[in-house]
Amino acid sequence: MGAGVGAGVKDATPAPGGGGAAPFRVGLLGHGTVGSAFASLLEERAGEIERFNGRAPMIAGVLTRTRGDFDEILAGAELIVEVMGGIEPAREHLLAAMRAGRDVVSANKQLLSQHGEELFAVAREHGVLLRFEAAVAGAVPVVRLLEESLAATPIERIHGIVNGTTNFILSEMAKGSSYAQALAEAQRLGYAEADPSDDVSGRDAAAKMAILARLAFGAPVHLDDVPYEGIEHLQSDDLEYARELGLGLKLIGTAERRDDGLSVRVYPAFLYAGHPLSSVSGPFNAVTVESEAITEITMSGPGAGGRQTASAVLGDVVSVMTGGARPPAPPLELRLLEDVPSAFYLHLEVADRSGVLATVTQVLGEQEVSIKSVLQRGLGENARLVMVTHQVAESRLRAALARLEEFDFLRSTPRTIRVIEEEFG
Amino acid sequence: MGAGVGAGVKDATPAPGGGGAAPFRVGLLGHGTVGSAFASLLEERAGEIERFNGRAPMIAGVLTRTRGDFDEILAGAELIVEVMGGIEPAREHLLAAMRAGRDVVSANKQLLSQHGEELFAVAREHGVLLRFEAAVAGAVPVVRLLEESLAATPIERIHGIVNGTTNFILSEMAKGSSYAQALAEAQRLGYAEADPSDDVSGRDAAAKMAILARLAFGAPVHLDDVPYEGIEHLQSDDLEYARELGLGLKLIGTAERRDDGLSVRVYPAFLYAGHPLSSVSGPFNAVTVESEAITEITMSGPGAGGRQTASAVLGDVVSVMTGGARPPAPPLELRLLEDVPSAFYLHLEVADRSGVLATVTQVLGEQEVSIKSVLQRGLGENARLVMVTHQVAESRLRAALARLEEFDFLRSTPRTIRVIEEEFG
Repeated sequence: MGAGVGAGVKDATPAPGGGGAAPFRVGLLGHGTVGSAFASLLEERAGEIERFNGRAPMIAGVLTRTRGDFDEILAGAELIVEVMGGIEPAREHLLAAMRAGRDVVSANKQLLSQHGEELFAVAREHGVLLRFEAAVAGAVPVVRLLEESLAATPIERIHGIVNGTTNFILSEMAKGSSYAQALAEAQRLGYAEADPSDDVSGRDAAAKMAILARLAFGAPVHLDDVPYEGIEHLQSDDLEYARELGLGLKLIGTAERRDDGLSVRVYPAFLYAGHPLSSVSGPFNAVTVESEAITEITMSGPGAGGRQTASAVLGDVVSVMTGGARPPAPPLELRLLEDVPSAFYLHLEVADRSGVLATVTQVLGEQEVSIKSVLQRGLGENARLVMVTHQVAESRLRAALARLEEFDFLRSTPRTIRVIEEEFG
Repeated sequence: MGAGVGAGVKDATPAPGGGGAAPFRVGLLGHGTVGSAFASLLEERAGEIERFNGRAPMIAGVLTRTRGDFDEILAGAELIVEVMGGIEPAREHLLAAMRAGRDVVSANKQLLSQHGEELFAVAREHGVLLRFEAAVAGAVPVVRLLEESLAATPIERIHGIVNGTTNFILSEMAKGSSYAQALAEAQRLGYAEADPSDDVSGRDAAAKMAILARLAFGAPVHLDDVPYEGIEHLQSDDLEYARELGLGLKLIGTAERRDDGLSVRVYPAFLYAGHPLSSVSGPFNAVTVESEAITEITMSGPGAGGRQTASAVLGDVVSVMTGGARPPAPPLELRLLEDVPSAFYLHLEVADRSGVLATVTQVLGEQEVSIKSVLQRGLGENARLVMVTHQVAESRLRAALARLEEFDFLRSTPRTIRVIEEEFG
């Protein structure tokens, strides 16, 4: 792959190190934090890459908002790297590059989670490679793990912490901060943006889970297919009760095969202490892949930073040079499921009078919601009931809560958080 | 790669699924636990592999101690999988296969750690692929991580828990068992063999670290180049003191670049609580790769089991079919270092009289061994001094201990265990 370089080539200097082979010409779209880190890293590593691959990569042209001409860069490059972000013009440029026979590397999670199938189809049609390790989990090579394990191991489930900002905020809240304090600290340290809504709402994690689900299960999953819930509504006292129950709180993305369908979702979840993701704290990412043949594999590392992301992009460039990649497979049909079972943490404020607990458990029982553990605590006139349920379909839990809201002993809207247990399925 | 199939082919049935393309013919050497698990997994996954690669793999012949003819199997196969273990005849067969132009996959850590350079040289000479993911860390794809990150990221250090048996034993000891009790339990559960010496001596881990060091740093490292220390001599009370100091005990393999050389070694080490390997317990493997560009990435999963190992072997077969691999690069020259600095835990039994602590710290100070923390505890006539030092070259610590042994207040031979700190280097 990697079509012949056209007539527009301007700079045909020999490879560094004088090995004789022509350099591998990379066109770079975008020169922000990631783009400039990529350009430096490529220059630093060119000699070593040449030692292994026989050719040294070089930047043959750069497109920014104010300089560079896309057609000229395309004509002079064997491979196009896109680190602009956003949908347009990134989409248009990547499609044009693949139609011109160029392999492409992108770090663009928005684009891949919303226009992935279009990009994959054009890559297949033109027999070119489309690599995107940097779009998910920064330097943690989970895309490669899924792509290359896929054929040898039927994957059953992925759980991921794929947003470092929210993981940092939850780690601070576990130490006693309020949500607002933790967010302010994340902003001060540069882990959260001034407008953090894409991170804290769960939408950023949902985009990454759509991409991982496509890789792991072969079915097309659009960002719009992934229901997500964020961390803005979490209360410090939920974390306190959870500690008493031996649970820690994370924003989890799940993609799992269930019977004839696929469930992909993002939600705050309590994890039991022994779960491989429960010890991942601070601005880190981690992904656990479960499969009958391999049991489970966990990968963890820092979330995206400019140089980490640049390293993942350069890894993709090298894998294209090596030939260690294949065009994306055509999509499989899998039904997307919505009402999947889970255990739930349930937090009720109720009037502190006799018979309330009995009524609550009866209402829950009518919807087959059974209780695994309960904490009850008096608060003057009122009491708090904190429960963890056994596995139950979410629709049943919602029905039970709707029925509970009809009783006058309920003092506020019930709060629920999913719980991931050791034996989830 | 993958030379044409010779005239000896017997079974040329079409690929399952009737896709039309001829099956990808695999010759299997060895049919024990891993070999038979591999054959089943390959059959289960053949259809899915065909969907992605256009060809379905099939077992074209099997060699065991009692049946099969190697030359016939070689003639009928495009790729040879070796899961016999041991040095001969595995070495001879792999060399013959590569000289006949076949790509090969091996799970043989003994062979690769002792004859790796010979195998790599023949693979390069004949332009064939030699894959060996299953030789290290079971289903955890650390070989692939190192191979494919290598060109994009200069690796500085690897720390690994690469022996599940010893990690299980140390996890049991941390809960209060003696070494003998923990070993017996490991044997009962099938995690340790009747003769556990290869595992508990650190030799198995040393073989794996030799392979990882070759991959990460490009320099030839033979099993004989890797000094190793096992866990047989560890005492339960060392674990108790360590807990008081906030440290956990693991058998660690380290491979690191230091100045102009390379240090590779296996040793029991105390890890501070926040280290990514400190939460890995039970019969698990985990590897942390450190590099300036990626900070650190940790991968963990179950240690070798038949089906996990088979899954890693099949992953290698698929990567050869896909073309996602390259012949091994020629070796680099790097000096192997022996006397590297480390922090140390130091356990001294001394007479409980005045002036002893002063003398000990003075003797240590003469060798520039400085103390970070001390616990002193009376034991009737005697006392225990438990210390953690700052970083110091091992030769200096040994010199200080030799000098201490000249004093009559010393009641037994000093015990030392390395400590891996947050900022190691």
